[in-house]
Order: sequence, then structure tokens, then C-alpha cells
Amino acid sequence: MERLDQLPTPALLLDLEVLERNVARMARRAQRLGVALRPHVKTHKCLEIAELQERHGAAGFTVSTLDEARVFVDRGFTDLTWAFPLPLSRLAEARRLAQRANLRLLVDSPQAVAALEAQEHPFHVWLKVDCGYHRAGVDPSSGMALELARRIATAPRLVFDGILTHSGQAYDAPSVEALRAVAEEERRVMVDCAERLRAAGIAVPRVSVGSTPATSVAESLDGVDEARPGNYVFYDHVQVALGACTAADCALTVLASVVSRQRDHAVVDAGALALSKDPGTGTTMGEIYRDYAGGILDPELRLVALSQEHGHLNRPLAVGERLRILPNHSCLTAACFDHYTVVRGDEVVGRWRIWRQRT
Amino acid sequence: MERLDQLPTPALLLDLEVLERNVARMARRAQRLGVALRPHVKTHKCLEIAELQERHGAAGFTVSTLDEARVFVDRGFTDLTWAFPLPLSRLAEARRLAQRANLRLLVDSPQAVAALEAQEHPFHVWLKVDCGYHRAGVDPSSGMALELARRIATAPRLVFDGILTHSGQAYDAPSVEALRAVAEEERRVMVDCAERLRAAGIAVPRVSVGSTPATSVAESLDGVDEARPGNYVFYDHVQVALGACTAADCALTVLASVVSRQRDHAVVDAGALALSKDPGTGTTMGEIYRDYAGGILDPELRLVALSQEHGHLNRPLAVGERLRILPNHSCLTAACFDHYTVVRGDEVVGRWRIWRQRT
Repeated sequence: MERLDQLPTPALLLDLEVLERNVARMARRAQRLGVALRPHVKTHKCLEIAELQERHGAAGFTVSTLDEARVFVDRGFTDLTWAFPLPLSRLAEARRLAQRANLRLLVDSPQAVAALEAQEHPFHVWLKVDCGYHRAGVDPSSGMALELARRIATAPRLVFDGILTHSGQAYDAPSVEALRAVAEEERRVMVDCAERLRAAGIAVPRVSVGSTPATSVAESLDGVDEARPGNYVFYDHVQVALGACTAADCALTVLASVVSRQRDHAVVDAGALALSKDPGTGTTMGEIYRDYAGGILDPELRLVALSQEHGHLNRPLAVGERLRILPNHSCLTAACFDHYTVVRGDEVVGRWRIWRQRT
Repeated sequence: MERLDQLPTPALLLDLEVLERNVARMARRAQRLGVALRPHVKTHKCLEIAELQERHGAAGFTVSTLDEARVFVDRGFTDLTWAFPLPLSRLAEARRLAQRANLRLLVDSPQAVAALEAQEHPFHVWLKVDCGYHRAGVDPSSGMALELARRIATAPRLVFDGILTHSGQAYDAPSVEALRAVAEEERRVMVDCAERLRAAGIAVPRVSVGSTPATSVAESLDGVDEARPGNYVFYDHVQVALGACTAADCALTVLASVVSRQRDHAVVDAGALALSKDPGTGTTMGEIYRDYAGGILDPELRLVALSQEHGHLNRPLAVGERLRILPNHSCLTAACFDHYTVVRGDEVVGRWRIWRQRT
């Protein structure tokens, strides 16, 4: 059995026990809240993890790109929501893929609805609603929301799946109480929007919400049908800082080695292409565990800067010392590697592919 | 012939004419300065570009990881410097690869020198020197510099290649004059260091320097033997801001589409996994061209935030509008994609693989 002290670095470590606990807990949480779970695979891009989520009752999956969708369809995952406003330049590809799977699309503009109306294919379509994040989506109280929902619902060939949102503003919540308030606001905005559309005679089959921080703390999802968290499989330093989880819930770390010791700092072999340059909370580019299994974050150590392959540690450690880095943003960190080194304690038990292609 | 207005987005566009001009110009510059050019491939990770550099006289290449080294050795590029302080955990792999190629290693610690002394293989070894960047490398005036150089030069089986540095502090230069001063300081520190080692009876075969900004503006490299710039093949917004190049010298852009129009902003389909989250100068996450070929940066438009697949543009544009994004940091942007879409004007003339694996 290969052990962590023999692995070449950098390596992306996935703690199987923590992963399984996170997947099981979110599945129970969704069940208790009375919603279906349609996990976002943009975080892990990994078939083995999707299978684990399926065993825990996942009802379909969410993808962020057509590349992810193709990989998952090729392996038999055929109920997918592409939770990104449809790029018109990808419509032909989406249509080809939709011959082989139920690929549910997302729209928030008349242009995208018109493009779909012009297709022969009976696409399933979600209307994207802005619940306060103000990134994309229609204003739930606008005439546009009514107009687009009606067009989708009455188009001869389209199937209206319902309304969908993402509470990305949860990432700005200054406290767990504020996070709970975001989750409740997301629920309320979406339920009100569905009621408004229904009052106007539009059948709204489903209401879909989701972000990992909001779903991790929501106290009620009454009126909501499904949630689409993604990051919860791994969590990360940002989620710990938000109060969405504890450090013990973080399943993903980067194993690195000290390669250069300087007077008041050290350099490790994990830089921007092993961690991403996500600034997280702005206080660190990565927190540090000095032990292998489980463990406690070292309060004195952190990465203060990253260049392409170099990580700049704020203390001098000995050349050859190995440590684990808790990334700021696990989704972007996973997308730096081609596989997870799956571990139980300090033993390597598997190697799972990360399907990060961008064609 | 495929044209840019037909390409699915996001796509990584490489302007062949600009690339060829950059490669030719840096080759002439190195010749004029009297140094060999050993380009860093971490920027492009692309065999076709390395071949172009070779046709323009590149004398070997520089890599940042063993993964890059393996790809290049497999395709017949057998004179490589791995310009990263040797991670002890990779020594066995480095040794296997060094059976098939001249893989020159870099050290700045007694631990790494000891590990190499213990090998049967006659590794070529550079001593990494800190010329003022203060990331890695030995202090050129220290006893450690003398001690390590002597150990490498006198080890029975090692071959001392000389001293090597990277003037990363060039990226903090506030003006072109300051940039020239960094280049001159790098040269002076390294020439002084070589003289000091030689005065102590240590033969120093070569002096290697390099960063794209410094090499782009250096007025003299007297006493230096080779330069290792990498970014110059593409340049990027950071290099423009530094004065190392003009926007017309930037060869790499991301073609994106507007997917959502909001009251005072728009969303494009290029986020952190198409551009990286490199903050660049801190003023933009990407500058914008609204035309296809060549063109002028739109002074009113820029990306103000990136999430995983979403780019947040500061102005509302129409859904479906296509634009090109000049990235902050082309090395990290290239590492987001699997291939370059090579273009001349608005015509697609090739598709070159990006070898971004991390095994």
C-alpha cells in the first residue's frame, strides 16, 4: 500500500472518509428539508464521486459546461441541468447532446428563448431568476420574468422545467446568521416568484435553488423542489470562514514539499497551477496542516503568495518537509489536477480521474 | 476555412502573426545582446511553439515541472533546464528522465546537493542565486553560495552548469526605467557572483538570467551566457502595464460570448477556468477587444469579477455579442485550455495542443 510519505509532490489528496461523510450528510439534510438533491459536478468533475452521490440518492446532476455534460452523458448520467445561461454559440452542440440525454438548459434572455423556440428539439428549459446575487437571471418581479416564463411554457416544442436560482451572495455573508438569512431570502424570493407566475396562469413544475453555504445552513426549504449544491463534497477554507462547515469537514488538500528555505520564509512546490489564484478571504492563499491524517491547521503557517509553480510560505521550514495545504477554493484547485489521490488516513486507496477538459 | 464568428465560445485564440513576430524579435534581441536563448515553455506548454522557437535559434528549453519535461523529452527536445528548486520527492523520476535527455537540475540547498551527490547519475546542476527577487536561491554574497558551488563543482559525478537566477522583482517595477534598472541589477549581481566564485577557484561554466520584462528591455547582458524568458511569446495585460510590450504585441486572447444582459452589466462565458483568477495590476480581470483581428482595447469595457465559468463585464452588452478578452496573465490562461485555436486575422488556421497535464 502506497503511503503519503512516499508520494511525489504536489499531489491532490482526497480524504475518502470526509468525502463520504459530507455526501451522506448533505443527502440527509436534503431529505429532511424535503427537496431533491441535484449536485453540481463542477466542483469534482469526477465519475466516482457522482456515483457515490447517486448511491446517496442524488436525483440527476448539475453541470457548468458542455464538456462536463458530454463526459457525464458518455458514462450514462443522462439527467443533467446545465446551470449556465445558454451561450448561443453552443446551441448546435447542446442539441446533439440532447439526442442522447435529458439536457436541461437555462435561459434568462429573449434571445436565448427565441433560439430554443426555433429548434426542432423538445428541450427542457429552466428560467434563471436572480434571487439577490445580481450576477445573472431575470428580476423575479419584472415583466421579463412573466414574459419569458410564458413563452417557454407555451412554446409548442419546449418543456418548461420551472425556475432556478443560485444564491452566490451567500459568499458575502459576514456570519452564520447572515448566511441563514440569505438562504431564507433565496427560498422566499423563489417561492414568491413561482406564486406570481402561477397566479398568472403559468404552470411552474419545479423550483430549484442552491449554493453550498446556503444549503448547508438553511432551516426551511418549504415550497422548493430541489437544491444544487456542489462544493459541499470537499468544502474549503472559504466555506470554513463562512461558517458553512468546520475545517474537519474539508476533504481536499494539496500535499506539497518544501523546496527552498530562506531566512524568513520557505518555498513549496505548490503554486497557482496547483491551488489556483483564488484570493479566498484575502488573508491567505492556503492554510497549512503539518501532519498527514486529519489534523489541525497550524495557526502560525500560511501561504502568503503564489506564482505559477511556487508557493511562498510565511515561515522557514526545512527543505524536504512535507505538508498539506487547505485550499481557498476547492473547485478551482481540483481543476488544476488530472486526478485525485484518494486516501484513508495516510494510506493511498485510489486514484480517480478529474475530467477537466475544455474542448 | 473556419472563421472566428463561427467558433463555439469560450475559445483560446492565438494570433499566429503576433506570435511569430514576438519569437523572431526576442531571438534577434538575444543575438544582439550576445546571449543564448533558452525559452521557458511553462507559458505555452506547446510543441509547435517550441519548434518555432527552435527554428529561430533557441538553444535548449526551460521547463517548470517534470510533467512538462516528460512531454518535451518524448518529442525529442533533449536539452532541458528544470528551473525549479529540485523537490526531493521527484528525484527518482528526474533520474529516470535523465537517462533519456540532458535534464539540468536546479538547487539552492545543502539537502538537494546531498541528494544529488548520492546518485549514480552524472546530473547537470545549476546553482540558483537570488538576484533580488527574494523568492528562492542562495544569497550571492553568502558563504552558502561558495559552499554549494564548490560542492557541485567538485562532486565526482555531478556536472556544474553554472549559476542561474530569475528577476521576478521586474514585475513590481513602476516604470520602464525601473524595469531597465532591474535588468541591469540582475546582470550585475550575477556577474559579480560568478567573479566571486571564480576568484575562489571554482570554474563557473555559464551564467543564466531571465524574466520576460527584464529581457525585453535589457540594454546589456555583458558577462551573461543565456536568457530564459517565457511569457514573451504571448505577452499579456500585465506586461503591457509594465511597459515590457504594447497591446499590439499580445498574441493570446479568449474569445467569449455575452450570455446574460443585466441593467448595468453583462455576463460572458469566460470565468476563472478560462482566464485564471490572476488579479494582474488589480484594476481588471481582463481587458476587452470588441473586434476580431488586431484591434484596439475598448477603454470603457473590462471584466470586474470572475466566478468559475462566469465573467462579469462592467457594461450591458447584447446577448450573443462576441468579444475577445486580453488576459492578465497569459501563462495561467493558457493552462486553462487543452488547445490553442490558431488564427490569422479572423481565420482559423490551426489547433495546437496545450500539454497541461499534472500527473
